[in-house]
Amino acid sequence: MASSLPAFSHVQQAAKILEGIAYRTPVLRSSFLGDRCGGTVFLKCENLQRTGAFKFRGAYHALVRKETTAPFHQVVTVSSGNHAQGLALASQLLGYSAHIVMPEPANAFKRTRIEELGAIVTVRSTRQEAQAFAQELVWRHRGLFIHPFNDADVIAGQGTATWELLQAEPGLDVVLAPVGGGGLLSGACLAAHGVNPSVKVYGCEPAKALDVRASLQHGYVVQPDPADTVADGLRTSLGELTFGIVRDHVEEIFEVEEEEIPAAMKMAFERLHLVLEPSSAVALAPILRGESVLANKRVGVILSGGNISLSDFFSLTN
Amino acid sequence: MASSLPAFSHVQQAAKILEGIAYRTPVLRSSFLGDRCGGTVFLKCENLQRTGAFKFRGAYHALVRKETTAPFHQVVTVSSGNHAQGLALASQLLGYSAHIVMPEPANAFKRTRIEELGAIVTVRSTRQEAQAFAQELVWRHRGLFIHPFNDADVIAGQGTATWELLQAEPGLDVVLAPVGGGGLLSGACLAAHGVNPSVKVYGCEPAKALDVRASLQHGYVVQPDPADTVADGLRTSLGELTFGIVRDHVEEIFEVEEEEIPAAMKMAFERLHLVLEPSSAVALAPILRGESVLANKRVGVILSGGNISLSDFFSLTN
Repeated sequence: MASSLPAFSHVQQAAKILEGIAYRTPVLRSSFLGDRCGGTVFLKCENLQRTGAFKFRGAYHALVRKETTAPFHQVVTVSSGNHAQGLALASQLLGYSAHIVMPEPANAFKRTRIEELGAIVTVRSTRQEAQAFAQELVWRHRGLFIHPFNDADVIAGQGTATWELLQAEPGLDVVLAPVGGGGLLSGACLAAHGVNPSVKVYGCEPAKALDVRASLQHGYVVQPDPADTVADGLRTSLGELTFGIVRDHVEEIFEVEEEEIPAAMKMAFERLHLVLEPSSAVALAPILRGESVLANKRVGVILSGGNISLSDFFSLTN
Repeated sequence: MASSLPAFSHVQQAAKILEGIAYRTPVLRSSFLGDRCGGTVFLKCENLQRTGAFKFRGAYHALVRKETTAPFHQVVTVSSGNHAQGLALASQLLGYSAHIVMPEPANAFKRTRIEELGAIVTVRSTRQEAQAFAQELVWRHRGLFIHPFNDADVIAGQGTATWELLQAEPGLDVVLAPVGGGGLLSGACLAAHGVNPSVKVYGCEPAKALDVRASLQHGYVVQPDPADTVADGLRTSLGELTFGIVRDHVEEIFEVEEEEIPAAMKMAFERLHLVLEPSSAVALAPILRGESVLANKRVGVILSGGNISLSDFFSLTN
């Protein structure tokens, strides 16, 4: 493992590398959401990022950092979602071919987007088989593997979203982010506490995939039950890097009930005029239910992504 | 008629009045849309404005300008849509009661939003009856009537959206905006040509309500046929103020076929992760079909609003 624990300076360096490449996504104030929690709410709209999610930040930053380490034939990852799209675009921009290995069920909407970005897609029936095939690409064909979250460069890249949020709104008391593998949340921790150690960082996790809270309680990485939450981006467990950062920095994990997720998506559609995918809507649930720790606070939320087809959106919210 | 023709300086003054009150909505670059028309595309996201549409700008500005003219008991308008919401919020912020007269069919989604903003809503079965009732409120009960578009202060307020767009992207060659009554488009003309007379301003109009193009051809305001376009905000005809400005400044009117409207809404949902109402999506159609005059140009588009219920959105796009 080449990666060591990233630090705040790593996020600041990533911000320089991403300048002019990743969009500086808008920070929107929402008086509607402010009223719901009795605070002031600012939304960092990473659903408006290139490829529709924050994942492009970490993928591009990691690829820039690693491209000088050793010669490679192609960029490889295992992902069925936003990391795959982010890495496909990063590879395209930097002139590499990307090979994405998707485990079943492979969403046709997402697959099309990945292929549009010039990446090769291979589907394998299980995550284990997908991992094995990716390993083969790395070993036999000189692939450069970029992990979706357990990688210091990826984490630092994701941290730039929170870094930009705090530059736009330096007085924030609280930062909320969804947590799956923990790349976004770890980056948020490094950025927020690098700027101001008294900012409280909260993770938001579906009740059906509450492995991060369990990991913090047990003191080691707990695997989620075969999780059937609609928040498909949050079904993974933490990695060793993200676990350490989350453990040391996160105030608390908010548990989000399954029915709160489509309700937050619908609210975002009708009130904010933003499209959020389920994994992103999770971070709005604590605001909508008026969590008491948010009252009278200046709250920043990372809206992590908006990649969902219209038909899936409708099935979920109907 | 108190209003005289507004000028660029009027837009600049409006921008000062709206500073810190209206959101300075984000300007997003879209490489997807750029590829579609062979140019560079920037989106001014007024769907992310307070009350979900640019209309708040003109309503607030007009109310501030007129509040000193004569004492009044309440603020009055006839509107079934975004002007009503914008005026309701403006009245709330400035401490006035607002009375909105809606002609049938009165959309329940929009009515709820208007009432949430503290306005009184009265529904009348036709537009004529709604106008007559509003007149009664003005005459008998000292109402202050604020027209949705044929008002110099309203036009100047709407112009601030384009003014902000051009501040963010000073090198634009082209500005696209939808046109119904012409408030947004007239304001766009004043702002764009005030900054740079060589910017080309295009209006975008549904084929089923092509009265603006007809008005320019005939040289006088043509009433639309009883128009059943899904772009409900664009069913009105120009007023005498907006006609004059549009005639003198607009390069051309792009005609948009009915089926292009839901297609643009779906594209905005899945590619831009933005919710647009039909009247707003109209302005993206010329880009999506690759109008030749947009090739190699820097194109700014006013995304005018996002007020549509989830269920209506799905009925239209499905």
